[in-house]
Amino acid sequence: MFREAEENDVGEIVKMLANDRLGKTRENYTHPLPKQYIKAFEAIQSDTNNELIVAVLEGHIIGVLQITFTPYITHQGGWRATIEGVRTDESVRGKGIGSKMITWAIERAKTRNCHLVQLTTDKTRTDALRFYEKLGFQATHEGLKLKL
Amino acid sequence: MFREAEENDVGEIVKMLANDRLGKTRENYTHPLPKQYIKAFEAIQSDTNNELIVAVLEGHIIGVLQITFTPYITHQGGWRATIEGVRTDESVRGKGIGSKMITWAIERAKTRNCHLVQLTTDKTRTDALRFYEKLGFQATHEGLKLKL
Repeated sequence: MFREAEENDVGEIVKMLANDRLGKTRENYTHPLPKQYIKAFEAIQSDTNNELIVAVLEGHIIGVLQITFTPYITHQGGWRATIEGVRTDESVRGKGIGSKMITWAIERAKTRNCHLVQLTTDKTRTDALRFYEKLGFQATHEGLKLKL
Repeated sequence: MFREAEENDVGEIVKMLANDRLGKTRENYTHPLPKQYIKAFEAIQSDTNNELIVAVLEGHIIGVLQITFTPYITHQGGWRATIEGVRTDESVRGKGIGSKMITWAIERAKTRNCHLVQLTTDKTRTDALRFYEKLGFQATHEGLKLKL
């Protein structure tokens, strides 16, 4: 049900990312798919510290997230897992798929010996904040962004 | 003045990380230095998407930060730079070294074609939040952490 994404999946992934209140303003889901999506996929796939994971149900991609594993000097040289780009298909919303995806990612982070799983969520996504808090995450940090 | 850290620098880096209200509870600055710090340094050094940067003044390390460059599918396949583990030596506090370090990291992120620089800061570090906001960062996100 969960596996690493393949190049053939990228179109369906971008479709999901674009079908979102914030995503629709910043993604570009067109045919053919803009080349930068494929380039990003190739960069992720060739990096052992990045995994693009899809949830598959009956042959259809119903969810996506990316996990980045990072070695840090801080916390006594501990590795962290950062989750980003979490989306589920609207056809399966409210069925616990998101929760299963995050739980899977947490287990994956343990396998990679991470001491911490982290993510940021836009403050306007109040449902997402509650969702992550239910799963045990604590909103202890400010998430700061600077657009270049 | 700014360069990538070398293995010989790790002791001084950990000393700075440990000399901090939060850091002192989670770092372990002892002689000899715990091996996991050196292992983390080696993992960072061998990863082209991670850079541990030190600020050097008159032969002494006066600051440190880590930059992670990550390819994402989101934002049309855009790369991001994540800054973490920012510390300046207490001997140079209030002299603008931190600001120069972050400005340097932002320029480095541009060189790596990142569209965004991001970081999280503990909500109890109110000075740090003001510091980053002055540099143009916006606290648009909640930073969530889950300890494993």
